[in-house]
Amino acid sequence: MAALQFQLQHTDPQSKARAGEITTDHGTIQTPIFMPVGTVGSVKSLTVEQLKSEVKAEIILGNTYHLYLRPGTEVLEAAGGLHKFNGWDRPILTDSGGYQVFSLAGNRKIKEEGVVFQSHIDGSKHLFTPESVMDIQRSIGADIVMAFDECPPYPSDYTYAKKSMELTHRWLERCIKHFHNTPDKYGYTQNLFPIVQGSTYKDLRTASSQFVANTNLTGCAIGGLSVGEPEEMMYEFTELCCDELPIQKPRYLMGVGTPWNILECIALGVDMFDCVMPTRNGRNAMLFTSKGVINIDNKKWEKDFSPLDDGIDCHISNYYSKAYLRHLIKAKEITGLTLASVHNLAFYLWLVKEARKHVLAGDFVSWKNELVPVLKTRL
Amino acid sequence: MAALQFQLQHTDPQSKARAGEITTDHGTIQTPIFMPVGTVGSVKSLTVEQLKSEVKAEIILGNTYHLYLRPGTEVLEAAGGLHKFNGWDRPILTDSGGYQVFSLAGNRKIKEEGVVFQSHIDGSKHLFTPESVMDIQRSIGADIVMAFDECPPYPSDYTYAKKSMELTHRWLERCIKHFHNTPDKYGYTQNLFPIVQGSTYKDLRTASSQFVANTNLTGCAIGGLSVGEPEEMMYEFTELCCDELPIQKPRYLMGVGTPWNILECIALGVDMFDCVMPTRNGRNAMLFTSKGVINIDNKKWEKDFSPLDDGIDCHISNYYSKAYLRHLIKAKEITGLTLASVHNLAFYLWLVKEARKHVLAGDFVSWKNELVPVLKTRL
Ligand SMILES: [Zn+2]
Ligand SMILES: [Zn+2]
Repeated sequence: MAALQFQLQHTDPQSKARAGEITTDHGTIQTPIFMPVGTVGSVKSLTVEQLKSEVKAEIILGNTYHLYLRPGTEVLEAAGGLHKFNGWDRPILTDSGGYQVFSLAGNRKIKEEGVVFQSHIDGSKHLFTPESVMDIQRSIGADIVMAFDECPPYPSDYTYAKKSMELTHRWLERCIKHFHNTPDKYGYTQNLFPIVQGSTYKDLRTASSQFVANTNLTGCAIGGLSVGEPEEMMYEFTELCCDELPIQKPRYLMGVGTPWNILECIALGVDMFDCVMPTRNGRNAMLFTSKGVINIDNKKWEKDFSPLDDGIDCHISNYYSKAYLRHLIKAKEITGLTLASVHNLAFYLWLVKEARKHVLAGDFVSWKNELVPVLKTRL
Repeated sequence: MAALQFQLQHTDPQSKARAGEITTDHGTIQTPIFMPVGTVGSVKSLTVEQLKSEVKAEIILGNTYHLYLRPGTEVLEAAGGLHKFNGWDRPILTDSGGYQVFSLAGNRKIKEEGVVFQSHIDGSKHLFTPESVMDIQRSIGADIVMAFDECPPYPSDYTYAKKSMELTHRWLERCIKHFHNTPDKYGYTQNLFPIVQGSTYKDLRTASSQFVANTNLTGCAIGGLSVGEPEEMMYEFTELCCDELPIQKPRYLMGVGTPWNILECIALGVDMFDCVMPTRNGRNAMLFTSKGVINIDNKKWEKDFSPLDDGIDCHISNYYSKAYLRHLIKAKEITGLTLASVHNLAFYLWLVKEARKHVLAGDFVSWKNELVPVLKTRL
């Protein structure tokens, strides 16, 4: 089996937007792409059938922190890896668990060796090191494995941001070494992506991007953004990083974002995205549609029997009405959570596939500039 | 459009089991049949696609009490009825709300006119009468509308049971009169089914069955069983009622039951069933399978990667493993509730369709007697 390959198919002349294709041992991914988040193995409230036929997902993300705690690597190894366990036979990327350790776990202590933390489930103590996190992701069987990093909060002072970035770089070297010293677990090739950090300091971001660019891995990620900084600042640092990263490797901007964030960041050269927003906001009655944002809880939809969104190519979005979904959400019916999540994810996938078409057609910027204000409209 | 028709296709020579076909303006139903319960419009945690392609449901049930409170008849009428509202284009049966008024609502008072009760949602006061319940079910647009009855608790003393039955009969006459005086709401034919009551007294059950048999409606229902009485008593009274009911009309046993209850009651001449058990028990980690009952929460399934049930013709039951569903249920993932509910419903539909095949093949009793102990096994 073969290492991840990236074929850059087209670069937009009016922006830095790119269209490409990633090839993994679990199949190909057309970029730009959005990756639904499958926290503990399932994308919340969806089946694999819905991910394939309704959402048309090409790759999903799993959370190392959650999967490590539950079901644990022993069960995942016995299953033959996460693909076998959850029935998703296309590519999987796993995060490194760093973000969850800092946002969810209790009583964490960062040391040179790694991070000691307490499980949010039962309070038990655990240690994540760059080496153990590589081992866990090997056991999960992700096609794309993320380096273990520290994600500093926004704002961070310069001294802290610099120390944190340097720690992330030392951890990255340990990740690479350990990853290369351990075999693929299930016969197909696993690939390690390094992560750029550096908070909101230009010199740090530049240095970190160059450090990452020099690792000779098959892709690159940008972390530590969309953590509370102003949107304009997020765009500024995304562009700065993209400009330093190798052209011939896919670029993954972690945890971003709204539909318009995604379009703007595609324009800056990003190829891969993930975010819990479509599923989490969906469960909280917020729909992203091709015509704007809908709070489906609102009384105004009570007798609106028009489809959730007839502008995208998802059966569920075309079939069920706003009034019906509003009713299900008001009545706290589980089916309502499923329909909202399927629709929002289908919308995100539709969005990146449209973006790709327009990059290939050469009219990406005018299309984006027309669409962004529509997407932001509160209906 | 035409009134409901029932074609009795075959009666088992060794039992009273029947195979038939019900024709409604929303399509045909092969009997015996199980009807998934779609309380407020959706079968909990399922989409219409899953009901059709995975469960293979032919008819679903809606709850008048719930739909009346939320979304209300005004919304349902604006939608053009429940079929248009929830996207289920096959037959729908609605209960009369009587059972929920007695089990869910607060502060209820039974009078000759009807029942005054308080909404379990906001405490608001409402009155259900035989006439208003016909109107509500007309507005919902059910293909099969149930008469408004009182379902006495088990045990009830003879005096109460007799008075209650007589009230149910007077209400039935009012239901029939009002139903016949009101037109079909949406262009297709709606059909009223009367309900046998009489608690656990033979003379009352006989009298009520004969009363119901004389109504000249298109089907009959047996209510007030499976409310806490011993299983053998439930079978005894089901048989007594079936023996009095017209041969040429479908018989619906309300709210029953376990898989073995359903097989035994098919043997006694029942054609239609509904029960919340497959969905409710599924959400509580209990799976009914072709090999026995599984508590999927149990540690013993942690590394059992065999399919949920490879003995039935449901993609989801064949595709996902016991270990994966156990993990989802332990992690309280919504997808786990969906998979358990889809599987259990698919199992119930598989069961009645197998029963039908064996009635038609002439070996129903030996098949049932072999299968019942298997289905009851705790795996
Ligand atoms: Zn996000
Ligand atoms: Zn029941």
